[in-house]
Amino acid sequence: MKIDVNSDMGEGFGIWQVCDDAALIDHVSSANIACGFHAGDPAIMTRMVRMAHERGVGIGAHPGFPDRQGFGRREHSYSAEEICQQVVYQFGALQGIANAEGTRIAHLSFHAAMGNQINRDPQLALQVMQVVARIDPQVIVFCMAETIIESAAREAGLPTLTLFLVDRAYQQDGRLVPRSQPGAVITEEAQVRARVRQFLDKGTVTTIEDTEITVRAGSILIHSDTPGSVELAGLVCSEIRASGHILAPAAEVLSQ
Amino acid sequence: MKIDVNSDMGEGFGIWQVCDDAALIDHVSSANIACGFHAGDPAIMTRMVRMAHERGVGIGAHPGFPDRQGFGRREHSYSAEEICQQVVYQFGALQGIANAEGTRIAHLSFHAAMGNQINRDPQLALQVMQVVARIDPQVIVFCMAETIIESAAREAGLPTLTLFLVDRAYQQDGRLVPRSQPGAVITEEAQVRARVRQFLDKGTVTTIEDTEITVRAGSILIHSDTPGSVELAGLVCSEIRASGHILAPAAEVLSQ
Amino acid sequence: MKIDVNSDMGEGFGIWQVCDDAALIDHVSSANIACGFHAGDPAIMTRMVRMAHERGVGIGAHPGFPDRQGFGRREHSYSAEEICQQVVYQFGALQGIANAEGTRIAHLSFHAAMGNQINRDPQLALQVMQVVARIDPQVIVFCMAETIIESAAREAGLPTLTLFLVDRAYQQDGRLVPRSQPGAVITEEAQVRARVRQFLDKGTVTTIEDTEITVRAGSILIHSDTPGSVELAGLVCSEIRASGHILAPAAEVLSQ
Amino acid sequence: MKIDVNSDMGEGFGIWQVCDDAALIDHVSSANIACGFHAGDPAIMTRMVRMAHERGVGIGAHPGFPDRQGFGRREHSYSAEEICQQVVYQFGALQGIANAEGTRIAHLSFHAAMGNQINRDPQLALQVMQVVARIDPQVIVFCMAETIIESAAREAGLPTLTLFLVDRAYQQDGRLVPRSQPGAVITEEAQVRARVRQFLDKGTVTTIEDTEITVRAGSILIHSDTPGSVELAGLVCSEIRASGHILAPAAEVLSQ
Repeated sequence: MKIDVNSDMGEGFGIWQVCDDAALIDHVSSANIACGFHAGDPAIMTRMVRMAHERGVGIGAHPGFPDRQGFGRREHSYSAEEICQQVVYQFGALQGIANAEGTRIAHLSFHAAMGNQINRDPQLALQVMQVVARIDPQVIVFCMAETIIESAAREAGLPTLTLFLVDRAYQQDGRLVPRSQPGAVITEEAQVRARVRQFLDKGTVTTIEDTEITVRAGSILIHSDTPGSVELAGLVCSEIRASGHILAPAAEVLSQ
Repeated sequence: MKIDVNSDMGEGFGIWQVCDDAALIDHVSSANIACGFHAGDPAIMTRMVRMAHERGVGIGAHPGFPDRQGFGRREHSYSAEEICQQVVYQFGALQGIANAEGTRIAHLSFHAAMGNQINRDPQLALQVMQVVARIDPQVIVFCMAETIIESAAREAGLPTLTLFLVDRAYQQDGRLVPRSQPGAVITEEAQVRARVRQFLDKGTVTTIEDTEITVRAGSILIHSDTPGSVELAGLVCSEIRASGHILAPAAEVLSQ
Repeated sequence: MKIDVNSDMGEGFGIWQVCDDAALIDHVSSANIACGFHAGDPAIMTRMVRMAHERGVGIGAHPGFPDRQGFGRREHSYSAEEICQQVVYQFGALQGIANAEGTRIAHLSFHAAMGNQINRDPQLALQVMQVVARIDPQVIVFCMAETIIESAAREAGLPTLTLFLVDRAYQQDGRLVPRSQPGAVITEEAQVRARVRQFLDKGTVTTIEDTEITVRAGSILIHSDTPGSVELAGLVCSEIRASGHILAPAAEVLSQ
Repeated sequence: MKIDVNSDMGEGFGIWQVCDDAALIDHVSSANIACGFHAGDPAIMTRMVRMAHERGVGIGAHPGFPDRQGFGRREHSYSAEEICQQVVYQFGALQGIANAEGTRIAHLSFHAAMGNQINRDPQLALQVMQVVARIDPQVIVFCMAETIIESAAREAGLPTLTLFLVDRAYQQDGRLVPRSQPGAVITEEAQVRARVRQFLDKGTVTTIEDTEITVRAGSILIHSDTPGSVELAGLVCSEIRASGHILAPAAEVLSQ
C-alpha cells in the first residue's frame, strides 16, 4: 500500500525558520509550503519548491491568514470573500513559483486559523473550494475525514486525501483529544511506532478510551513546529518501509 | 490602425487609493494591475480583474518592490535572484486571481524602481524575462522602444509592445526629457491632443529641440497618479476615435 | 466657554491619504494622530506633529490594531496583554516624535476596532488605562460619556474629555443611532449648524425621537474620513466663534 | 575595572527567534533590544525589557531599517530625514515599553545596514545624534572607537561607549578584518579566552599581522546570531570574573 507523509514546510521568514526544512524534507512525500502570508517569502518558497521538485516530493500550497506576527494562528473577522481572495492569491503565487521551476502544485492544505474558520462554515468552505476548482480542478485537498472541508471539496469536484495524526490521541468519536487535555500529544517513540504500525496494518487507532476505531487516511501528518519533528518523521518513514508499505506523494496514493 | 491605451491601476491598499480606478478603466484598453507588493491587495486585485474582464480590457501584471511605504519608488539592494522571485510571486498571484475570475494575464509592465533597476542591467533583465517565459511564454512585455527590457524580452522569446508617453517631452535621441528639466511634463490639453494626433497620423513626435522624430509605439501610457489622469485618458481616447483609429488591448494591436 | 474640536489625522500611509490633513488641521484644536499600525508612518507622524505644534493644536495618540489593509476596523483575537503592548508601543513611538519636535502628547483617542474592543471589556479597559498612566499620568483620554473607557480612565487616575458627535443622530438613551438605521448620519449644513449652536448654548441635543437630552461633552469630533469633513470642521468652528465660544485644545477645556 | 558585555537581543518576530534570548541575557550587562522594524514586536520587546529590568541589565534601543524579510541587512535609499524618523519612532516605542515596565532606555546601538549607512555619512550621523539628544540627552551611544558615529555623538553632547569585538580579527590600523578574508572570525575557545584576558589586562589586541595595538573599549560585543553565542558570552563573562574585573552595564562603566 502506498502511503503519504506530509508536513508544513517553509514556515520561516527571511532569516528566521521554524524547523530544519532541509532535513525534514528527506522524510516526507508531500510538503505543504507556506505562501507568504502567515509565513514564507518568495526566496523561501523558491528554495522549498526546488528541494521538493528535486526529490519527487509533492508540492502543496499551505495558505494562511496574513498575520506573520501571529503565525496565522489568531482568529480575524475576515469576510468569506476576503478569505477566498487570500487563498487564491497565495495559491497563485506558489503556482507561479512552481511553474518557474518547471513543476506544479499537487495539493492544498490550509494553515491553522484559516483552516479552522473554513472548517466551521459549510458555506464558506464550499465557496473556497469552488474558487480553487476554477484555478486548478485537479488539486488534491488535504483534510481530516468526515469534516466540512472534505464535504465541500467533494461537492466542488476536487479530490481529497485524509490525514492521520500519529502524535495526537483520538477519541472514540474519531475526533482528536483537545491539546488542553492530558494525554493529547503522544511523544514516546515506541508508542508512535506502534500507532504507525497499527494504522498501516489494520487501518485503526486505539483511542484514549482504549477502544479501537477505524482511521480513514491516506497521509500521515507530521507537525513540523514541535521539537523533534525531524526525528518523528524519520521514525514514521522507517516504520512504513519496515512494514512493507511505500512512501508516495498524494497523487500516487490516490491513484493506487 | 489599432492602438492600445494603458495605465497603472489598482494601486491602492485597503481603503486607500491613488486615483479613481472605476472611472479611469473606461478610458483604457490595458490595465497594469498592482500585485500586492508596492500597492494592491487581494481584494483590490480581484475588483480590478473583474472590472477589466467585464470591459474587455487587457489584464496586466504590474509587479513592484515590496515597499508599500515607499510605493515601490525607492531603490533597494535586492539580488538578481530576489528580483526574479518577486516578479514570479506577484505574477503568479495575479494569474491565480485572473484564473479564478475566468480570465488570464495578457501583459506585464514593471513598476517604478523595479523597472528602472531591471532596465539598467542586461543580465538581470534577461534573467527576469527567462523566468517569466517559463511561466507564460505568451505574455506581452510593455516597455519603451530600444531599451534593455525590450532586448531581453525578445531574447527570451516574449512578445513586446512599446510605449508612447503622451504627456512627456522627448529629446532628439528618443529619450524622455528628465522630470527635473523645464518642459518635461506636458499638461496643456490642446498640446496633448496635437501630440496624440501627430503620433497616430505620422508616427512621430516633435522633440523639445523642435525636431520631428519617429516614435515606435503600440500603446499610449497614461500616468494614473498625476492629477487629471482620468480626463487625460478620456481626451486621448476621443482623439483616437476622432482620427479613425481603434482602441484595442495589446494582443489585438500585436496581431493586426 | 472653551470647547475643543478634534479629528483623526495622519491616517495615510506613504503616498496614500484619507483626507486633506493640511486643510483640516486649521479647523481643529486637537489632532488624533495615527501611530503607524492601522495607518500613519514615521514621516507622516512627524509632519502631523510639526503642523499641530506650529498651530498650537493638541497632539493626540490615536493607536489602532496592526492591520493596515483593514484600516484597523476589523476585529482580531488579540489578548488583553497584546492590546496593552500595542497601545504602549504606539504611544511611545508618537511620544518620541513629539519630543524630537520639542513638544509632547496631550491626549489619547483609540481607533475603531481597538476602541470598540476596549470599550466592551471593563477589565481590559482598566488594564490599558493603568499601563498608559504608568507612561504618562497626565494624558487626557478622549471618550464618549458614560462608557467603560471613561470609568476605567478615571479609576486609573487619568483625566478624560468626552465627545459630542455633531454629525450623528442620538437616541433618547444617549447612545448613537446605529449607522445601519435611516437618519443616523446628519449631512445637511443648516441642521449641523443648529445642532452645534444648541449644544453650545444649552448643552443638549434633540434626539431622533424628537426629545431633548443633555450632552456632557468638552470636545466635538469630526470624522475625517467622510466626504466634506474639512467643510464640516470649518462650519463647526465658525459656529463656535459666532456664538462667542472659544476653540481650545483639550487641556485648556479641562482647566477652564 | 568595570566592563560591559552587550549583545543584540529580542531579534525574533512572533514565534520566530534568532537565539535563546532567555539564556543569553544571563551573560550580558547590556541588551540591545530590536524595536519592531528589522525584528522584534511589542510582545517580544516587553518580554525583553522585563527580563533585562529584573536582572539589572541595561536596556538599549537597537533600531534598524523597516525590512523584516532582509533582517535590516539590505541597503535602502532612505533620505537622511527618513532615517532620523525611523530612529526616533523606534526609540520612542521602546521607551514607552520601558516606562510601562517602570524603567528606561540606557543606551542606543544601531543595527546592520542602518548603522553602516549612518557611519558612512558625517552629516547624517550628526543629524541622527542631534535628534536623539532632543529626546534623551543622557542615552549612551554604542559605537566602534574613532568612527563617524562616535564623533557625531560627541558633537551632539551624547555619552559614548566603544566596543571590542572579541570574535573578530583586527588589522594594524584598528579596523576589523573583513568577513570575506580568512581568519576574520575567531571561533577557537582558547584563543577567545586569551583575547579577552589580553584586552582586560593590557587593553590591547594582537592583530592579524601579529602586532599589538591598543583597543579603546568599554564594552565587549557578542554577536547573538552566530552559533554558540550563548557559550561565547558565558566564556567571556567567566574570563572577566576570573581576571578580577566586574561585569557592569554601560552607565556604570562610564561613571567608574
